[in-house]
Amino acid sequence: MYDRLKGFRDFYPEEMGSRRQVFDAMEDTAARYGFREIATPTLERTQMYVDKSGEEIVDELYAFEDKGGREVTLTPELTPTVARMFVAKQQELSKPVKWVSTRPFWRYEQVQQGRFREFYQTNVDIFGSSEPEADAEILAFAADTLRGLGMTADDFEFRVSHRDILSGLLDAFDADVDTRNAIRAVDKRAKIDEMEYIGLLEDAGLSDLQAQQFDDLITTGDLDAIADFGDEDLTAAVDNLRNVLSAAEDFGAGDVCTLSLTTARGLDYYTGVVFECFDTTGEVSRAVFGGGRYDDLIEDFGGQPTPAVGVALGDATLQLLLQRADAWPDEALQTDYYVLTVGDTRETAARVARDLRERGNVVETDVSGRSFGAQMGYADSVNAETVVIVGEQDLENDEVTVKDMVSGEQTTAPVDAFPGEFDAPTYDDFAE
Amino acid sequence: MYDRLKGFRDFYPEEMGSRRQVFDAMEDTAARYGFREIATPTLERTQMYVDKSGEEIVDELYAFEDKGGREVTLTPELTPTVARMFVAKQQELSKPVKWVSTRPFWRYEQVQQGRFREFYQTNVDIFGSSEPEADAEILAFAADTLRGLGMTADDFEFRVSHRDILSGLLDAFDADVDTRNAIRAVDKRAKIDEMEYIGLLEDAGLSDLQAQQFDDLITTGDLDAIADFGDEDLTAAVDNLRNVLSAAEDFGAGDVCTLSLTTARGLDYYTGVVFECFDTTGEVSRAVFGGGRYDDLIEDFGGQPTPAVGVALGDATLQLLLQRADAWPDEALQTDYYVLTVGDTRETAARVARDLRERGNVVETDVSGRSFGAQMGYADSVNAETVVIVGEQDLENDEVTVKDMVSGEQTTAPVDAFPGEFDAPTYDDFAE
Repeated sequence: MYDRLKGFRDFYPEEMGSRRQVFDAMEDTAARYGFREIATPTLERTQMYVDKSGEEIVDELYAFEDKGGREVTLTPELTPTVARMFVAKQQELSKPVKWVSTRPFWRYEQVQQGRFREFYQTNVDIFGSSEPEADAEILAFAADTLRGLGMTADDFEFRVSHRDILSGLLDAFDADVDTRNAIRAVDKRAKIDEMEYIGLLEDAGLSDLQAQQFDDLITTGDLDAIADFGDEDLTAAVDNLRNVLSAAEDFGAGDVCTLSLTTARGLDYYTGVVFECFDTTGEVSRAVFGGGRYDDLIEDFGGQPTPAVGVALGDATLQLLLQRADAWPDEALQTDYYVLTVGDTRETAARVARDLRERGNVVETDVSGRSFGAQMGYADSVNAETVVIVGEQDLENDEVTVKDMVSGEQTTAPVDAFPGEFDAPTYDDFAE
Repeated sequence: MYDRLKGFRDFYPEEMGSRRQVFDAMEDTAARYGFREIATPTLERTQMYVDKSGEEIVDELYAFEDKGGREVTLTPELTPTVARMFVAKQQELSKPVKWVSTRPFWRYEQVQQGRFREFYQTNVDIFGSSEPEADAEILAFAADTLRGLGMTADDFEFRVSHRDILSGLLDAFDADVDTRNAIRAVDKRAKIDEMEYIGLLEDAGLSDLQAQQFDDLITTGDLDAIADFGDEDLTAAVDNLRNVLSAAEDFGAGDVCTLSLTTARGLDYYTGVVFECFDTTGEVSRAVFGGGRYDDLIEDFGGQPTPAVGVALGDATLQLLLQRADAWPDEALQTDYYVLTVGDTRETAARVARDLRERGNVVETDVSGRSFGAQMGYADSVNAETVVIVGEQDLENDEVTVKDMVSGEQTTAPVDAFPGEFDAPTYDDFAE
C-alpha cells in the first residue's frame, strides 16, 4: 500500500462536491464580471522566482533540474506566470485584460491547519487600468463571490490599505528609512508584540518616537491628518484610496470595506491599494485572502509599463471561513434517479436511464448484476431522490414503479410515458 | 522576458473558452451517469511508478528528490493514484465506486503534433463490478460525450477488443509464448510493416506459421472460430466480449462499437475488454483515446481483489478529432452586455451592471476612465451583444440607450425599468 505525500490531499466525492460548489461560485461570479478563463503551466523556470524574490526563495519551492538540464519549479503562485503571459502578447491583447483561473500551487513549507504543500487558488487580475474603478471591481468581485456563497457583511470584512500611504508617511518621517522592511514590520504587526514591532520599525530606520507617531497615524487612520503630514505624492495616495473606496461603494462593496492602514500585505510587489479579507468574528485568526495593485511588475518582466490589480482566493482559508459561517456546502452526494432492474429488463431500464439523462438528470443504474435489496441499498448510499423500478412483472403490464425515497411512497407509471413529457418525473406526477 | 518551457502550453481566453466547453461536455456527461468528481495530488512517490512499470520508466517522468529527501514524480497518469485512493478507503466506500476527474499530467518526452509534456486528461473509472454492464457503461459514457460535442457515428468508432482473447489464443498456439511481448506487438501492428510485426511475434515465441495463423484469426475476428480454437478460458473471454457488446447496444453505444481484435492497447495492466476510439476518416491517424478493464491493479496495490474498468480522454488528440469533424467550439469571447458610461454616471451604470449580473448575465463596464469611442471599441473586441449607454443627457430624461451590436440599431429605455422585469433585456424589448 502506498502513502500520500505529506501536505498533499486526496479529495473524495463528498468533500469534492462541496469544493466544486465553492469553485463554481467563484468562477461564475468572475464570468459575470467579464473575467475570462485562462490556463497556465505547472512548471516555470526557477530563475523567474529568483529574479523576483531572491535566491533564498528556492528553499521554499519545489525546484529541480529537469531531464534536459533546465532549472524548473512547480509554480508557487500565479502572478509571475500571468505577467509572463501578458508580456508575451502585450501588443495584441485588448485592454483592460481581465483574467481568471483556478488551479493548484505548491510550496515546500511546514504543514499546519489551513496550510498545505499543495493548495488551490482562484486568481483574478485586471491589467491595463490605473483607475480606482479597477481596484473597486476586484473588491466588488470578491464581495459578490462571498455573498454568492451565502455570507454577508456580518461574516467578513475587507481591510483596505494603501502601500503608497505607508511608504509616503515613512518618507515624511525620514527619507532614508528602509521602506520595504518597515512595511514588512507593519505586515507582522498583528502577529508580534508591540516591543518587537517598534523594534522592527527602528531597525528600518525610524527613531522610537517616529515609530510611535507613525503607528499612531496608521492606527487612527485619519486620512486628513495623514495627507497634511507629507508631500503631494502622499496627498495623491490618500486621494486614490478615497476614490477606490468611493468606487467600491458605487460597485456595491461599500458595506464590507473598512479603512485599515495597519494592513500591509506581505509580498513586496504591491504598489497601491492593498486589502485583506478577515473573519469578522475573529475565529479564523489570519487573513482569509488578499490582493492589491502591482503597477511595476509588468515592466519588471520586460513589458511596457502596465498597471495591474488582482486578488487570489485560497481554498484552505476560504473553507475555514465558510465553515465558521456555517456556509460550507453540504458534503453529500446528489442523485436524481436510480433505475433499478429486476430480472431481464436491461434494455428497457437502459432506455429509461438514457431518456432521463438526456433531460439533464443524474441517473445511476445497475452495472453489477445485483439483487433488488443490494440495488436499493446502493440507491440509498448515493442519496437517490427517486428510484424507478423496472421489473419483469411490471413490464408485463407495460408499467414501471416510481418510488419517492424520502417519503417511501411508490406508485406505477406507464412505461411508454416515462419520462415522456416530464423533464424530471417524480412520484407525485403519477400518484392517484 | 521569460520563455515558456518546451512542451508546456499557455491558454489564453479565446482558446480556453473552447477547451472549457469541451471539458464541461465531458464532465456534465459523466455527472449524468453518476460519476463523482474527485481531485488528486500532482506529486506521488516515484516508487509507485517504478513498481508498476520498472526502473526504466523514470527516464520518461518528471521525477526528482524533494527537500525532505523523498523521491517524487509529477504524476504521468491517474490510474495508480486512484488505485492508491481506492485501497486507502476500500472498506468504507459504497461499491461500485464511480469516479471522474479532469487535470494535467506530465511526461518528459519528445514534443510533436498532439503530444505535449504537459497534457490534460478526463479520467472515468468504475471499481467493484466485473459485469459486462460496467464495461458497457464506460463505452456509453464515452459515446455520449462525443455525441454531446456534436459528433456522430460517421465521425468516430470504438474498436473493441479483449486482452484475454488475445492471450488465450496465444496460449492455444504455444503455452510458452511471452504473452506480454506478443500483445505489445499487436499494439504496434498498425504502426510497423508486416515483416517487423511478424518478427516481433516470433521474438515472443510463435513460429512464423503460428504468427500468420494468429494474425489471420484476429484480423478476421471470427469469434466462433476463435472460441473453437482454445480452452474454456478462451470461450469465456469470447462470451464476455459478446456480452459487453450486447450491453453496449442496450446502453445506446452499439452503433459506434466495432469488433477489432487487432486493437491491444499499450499499457500492461489491462486484463479484459480494451477499446480505442478512432477517427472514421483516418485523418487523425492514431487512437484518439482508449480504455479498458484492469481487474488486477487494486490487488497489486495491496487492496482486496476488485475489478475495475475505465477510460481516459486526452485533450490534444480529442481536439484533433473535434477539429477534423468541424466540431471544435468557436474560439470567441462571449459577452452579454457592455455598460458604457458617459460623464459622471458611474453610480447608475454600476447599478445597471450589478442588476444584469444578478440575473446571470456576463457584463463588463468601464474600469479605465475611457472615452465613448474607446469603450465602444472594447465592447466590440469582447463581442458584446448589447451595449447599454448610461449618459448624462439620457439620465436627465431618466433614460438609458440600448444598442444592439449586431444590427447597430438603438433605442431608449426608462432607467428605472432597466433591467426591471427582464432577465436579459434587448433592443427589441424597448424598440417602438
